[in-house]
Amino acid sequence: MTISTRSESPFVSTLPGRYYYDPALYALEQERIFSTMWVCVGRADAIAHPGSYQLVNVGQENIIVIRNREHILQAFLNVCRHRGARLCTEAKGQLKGSIQCRYHAWTYGLDGQLIGAPNVLDDERFERAEFGLYRVALEVWEGLIWLNLSDDPAPIASQINGPVQERFSDLSDFARYGIGELQLGKRISYDIHCNWKLVLENFMECYHCGPMHPELCQLLPGYKGGMAYIDSSAATLADGVEAFSLSGKASHPPLPGLRPDEQRLYYGIVLEPNVLLNLLGDHVLIHTVYPEAPDRTRVECDWLFHPDTMAAEDFDPTDAVEIFDLINRQDWEVCELTQQGMTSRAYRSGGVYVPKEHHIRTFCDFVQKKLEQ
Amino acid sequence: MTISTRSESPFVSTLPGRYYYDPALYALEQERIFSTMWVCVGRADAIAHPGSYQLVNVGQENIIVIRNREHILQAFLNVCRHRGARLCTEAKGQLKGSIQCRYHAWTYGLDGQLIGAPNVLDDERFERAEFGLYRVALEVWEGLIWLNLSDDPAPIASQINGPVQERFSDLSDFARYGIGELQLGKRISYDIHCNWKLVLENFMECYHCGPMHPELCQLLPGYKGGMAYIDSSAATLADGVEAFSLSGKASHPPLPGLRPDEQRLYYGIVLEPNVLLNLLGDHVLIHTVYPEAPDRTRVECDWLFHPDTMAAEDFDPTDAVEIFDLINRQDWEVCELTQQGMTSRAYRSGGVYVPKEHHIRTFCDFVQKKLEQ
Amino acid sequence: MTISTRSESPFVSTLPGRYYYDPALYALEQERIFSTMWVCVGRADAIAHPGSYQLVNVGQENIIVIRNREHILQAFLNVCRHRGARLCTEAKGQLKGSIQCRYHAWTYGLDGQLIGAPNVLDDERFERAEFGLYRVALEVWEGLIWLNLSDDPAPIASQINGPVQERFSDLSDFARYGIGELQLGKRISYDIHCNWKLVLENFMECYHCGPMHPELCQLLPGYKGGMAYIDSSAATLADGVEAFSLSGKASHPPLPGLRPDEQRLYYGIVLEPNVLLNLLGDHVLIHTVYPEAPDRTRVECDWLFHPDTMAAEDFDPTDAVEIFDLINRQDWEVCELTQQGMTSRAYRSGGVYVPKEHHIRTFCDFVQKKLEQ
Repeated sequence: MTISTRSESPFVSTLPGRYYYDPALYALEQERIFSTMWVCVGRADAIAHPGSYQLVNVGQENIIVIRNREHILQAFLNVCRHRGARLCTEAKGQLKGSIQCRYHAWTYGLDGQLIGAPNVLDDERFERAEFGLYRVALEVWEGLIWLNLSDDPAPIASQINGPVQERFSDLSDFARYGIGELQLGKRISYDIHCNWKLVLENFMECYHCGPMHPELCQLLPGYKGGMAYIDSSAATLADGVEAFSLSGKASHPPLPGLRPDEQRLYYGIVLEPNVLLNLLGDHVLIHTVYPEAPDRTRVECDWLFHPDTMAAEDFDPTDAVEIFDLINRQDWEVCELTQQGMTSRAYRSGGVYVPKEHHIRTFCDFVQKKLEQ
Repeated sequence: MTISTRSESPFVSTLPGRYYYDPALYALEQERIFSTMWVCVGRADAIAHPGSYQLVNVGQENIIVIRNREHILQAFLNVCRHRGARLCTEAKGQLKGSIQCRYHAWTYGLDGQLIGAPNVLDDERFERAEFGLYRVALEVWEGLIWLNLSDDPAPIASQINGPVQERFSDLSDFARYGIGELQLGKRISYDIHCNWKLVLENFMECYHCGPMHPELCQLLPGYKGGMAYIDSSAATLADGVEAFSLSGKASHPPLPGLRPDEQRLYYGIVLEPNVLLNLLGDHVLIHTVYPEAPDRTRVECDWLFHPDTMAAEDFDPTDAVEIFDLINRQDWEVCELTQQGMTSRAYRSGGVYVPKEHHIRTFCDFVQKKLEQ
Repeated sequence: MTISTRSESPFVSTLPGRYYYDPALYALEQERIFSTMWVCVGRADAIAHPGSYQLVNVGQENIIVIRNREHILQAFLNVCRHRGARLCTEAKGQLKGSIQCRYHAWTYGLDGQLIGAPNVLDDERFERAEFGLYRVALEVWEGLIWLNLSDDPAPIASQINGPVQERFSDLSDFARYGIGELQLGKRISYDIHCNWKLVLENFMECYHCGPMHPELCQLLPGYKGGMAYIDSSAATLADGVEAFSLSGKASHPPLPGLRPDEQRLYYGIVLEPNVLLNLLGDHVLIHTVYPEAPDRTRVECDWLFHPDTMAAEDFDPTDAVEIFDLINRQDWEVCELTQQGMTSRAYRSGGVYVPKEHHIRTFCDFVQKKLEQ
């Protein structure tokens, strides 16, 4: 996130209130942001075997993410090409070798090709090749599955490398976290009564950390003064604190790729439109943000650890989980209070970002530019 | 239902997805289809005596169907002409000789005439004749009550005879079923999460019978191959099957008007917009379809038997009820799956009817033509 | 409420049905009526001490009504000027000396001035005076708090004196009720499934009293014939009835300012847009009407007594409360029945006011004129 230089004053306007509640603007965001960009929908290792699948939602679409016979992940709209019936109905499952519609038994291979359709597959007037499942572009990045509803999207690197390089000018420094090798130690799912953008804006600034997060500020005292770590800077653990945990004690070895000085840093990175990365010395935490309505957002928070760490007999993620679960709940409380003010005439033209929040305006500009396209 | 001959290919498009979820199109259907056509609202014998009434909904309207002093059924909008209060509030009941508004005691005769209005009935400036209840056109056809919200509708025969004659070119063959003489043996009401048109489309084709209805196909093996019985054809019970029942055994005598060969036939007939007739050798089953929202439909399913059959001491409709209740539930399951696909971009231009479903396109044309009027 | 003289017939049209259910018309009413007029939001004595506050809703706004250090009531939009968070979250409470936002600790004095904002209050580029809370105009009239969302509204007397003078041509006759000195003996809150205007229209006419309110007519027999007391007239207690109570017995002394003949009168007065005053010989009852949706209205009904009466050891408001609680529930029943008729084609052009309801048309004209502005 680079700081906008268009405005000369460090006091800049937020988005007008209607951006946070208007159903028409929300629908436009779903179309112009979530249906054109790469959107994260979960972890690749959760879909382990050929025929394993999960259902996910992006924009208006329900999508089957499935591992095919060649162990490749693919994604298809969960809609039969015949009469439109939903094909898979369980949130996740294991298919044998095909996807069959319950209604008229049309059958698709794990690669989406139509391989069975009673009475018509051999009809010479039937253009079988036209009736495969609609494919959705899929890439795996650092163990995360990303989908893109565009017809022919640019590779995911074109979307993600920029934000990462703002913090790690050398991408190999980021790569040493080895996120793609980590495993899921704990997941907590949150249902928040606010617009998805308020969750991202909350994550982008630390001006609220002093009032809202006393426990966080004990661990990372740089946040007390509201400092936002952008560009290549990172927050550092307080003297005497061993690790980012509720007790401040370390209960896991550091991530193996990190240098000793890096083991005491915290990086928070936004990957628009829906991922918040939290890099720590001994684990990584990822928020995946799912808009569900103009004023409803689901956040899935994954705590990731090194496989060797998780293999230890006494592995216990509790200390690491509790601190960020506490911070999450503190944040969702104020996000929900903010949502309540959005419809007021007092916020018709929006509010103000102070200098320590100035950089959030770039996110607002990104949203507005996308909606104007 | 005649097969459309406009398109040369037997693979034709369904309606676009929006026809099944868009609230504006649903409202237009309520106005242009359900408020201009004869709509079935239940059984005449359920309103037995002078002053007996039932409340029914057609389109946006709540309507009192009441038997008057001359034993004639009539229908009125359930709205007081004075200040608009709803008059009758119970789903059914028995009135003495008038309909009285609770608010200001305006009182109407069973023929809808205003017969009491405190302080004003004798006021010479008050045009009493202008303040009777709004009457709704009503006809009874084969024991079923049909209403028409149009001002001056054509007789119901103009709407119903066509579809019946497509199956029975000689109307007297249909008349020998004597539906109007039958009595209600069992009613089951279903609440289905789908658009009303999906219920009709499901009924119109048998391409799904193989995959979805193994029990039905045991009784009527012609359905296994997906054959749709249209024109003057009918499905025939399998050899060894005595009757259309879960066990395949007969437990009721045949309907008295039928010839022996007719006693082994099944006719399914759609009476647009909201009745599905099922004619069998020993009973008749009628689905009445009530749209409740773009994605909600109530279906009332009535199993009808001859009065002599029902008068038997050991009368038990269970065997006949169980087979079609099973079929119903199988059908509603796939109707609901289909509804879930309607909002997808994959169904934006609709899906495809295969040759054995080709004739459904005529129903789509009927709907689109009505909405364009 | 003066009787309209524009129409020559005493049979005049009501508002068309859509005025009672259309969300767009409801939103327009909230903007053109409830956001431009003085609106009553409760009792001043409920907010007793400096720092005491209550939250109320007017139009789309949530508002803090708070007593400041000088014991003056003030009102502010409950929205932080920084990022829009709701400030106070409890329905009522007691603040120490300031209003602080939980999110970033921006702090406002009880007069709305911004007195704390971490990091920025001393920034010379920050225009602190521009970031006080948005103030809402407030007046106290007869112990009731009224708010006005207009920028620079005319004094409340310009809105209220007219309707009061229609009943009391000498305002000092009204003043002798001493409403502002009375105290709350009982409050009942009602949730009614109807449009707010139906509640006011119900209160404006007595044509329904005969059919709906037999107990009321026993106490005030003038209502039996449907007489509406407008201009300077008032209803009088029946001979033998001591007071307006369910038993007809008096259990409280008369209000001290009233002459003996006045002690037997009942005045019902509408103060548009949302107050219904009921003046009786020994107590006063006030309905405050809060629109909550096109078809939902909350009514708070306050029974007020003289402080000396309430100070009595054996003070018991039950007898007075029970009669009007009964009348209220009878009225809400028919208001809800009327709401159900509003969407019918039978009420598309509205219904009719009979001569005894003729004066309600003035209220309709008021609403329509406001919406056209």
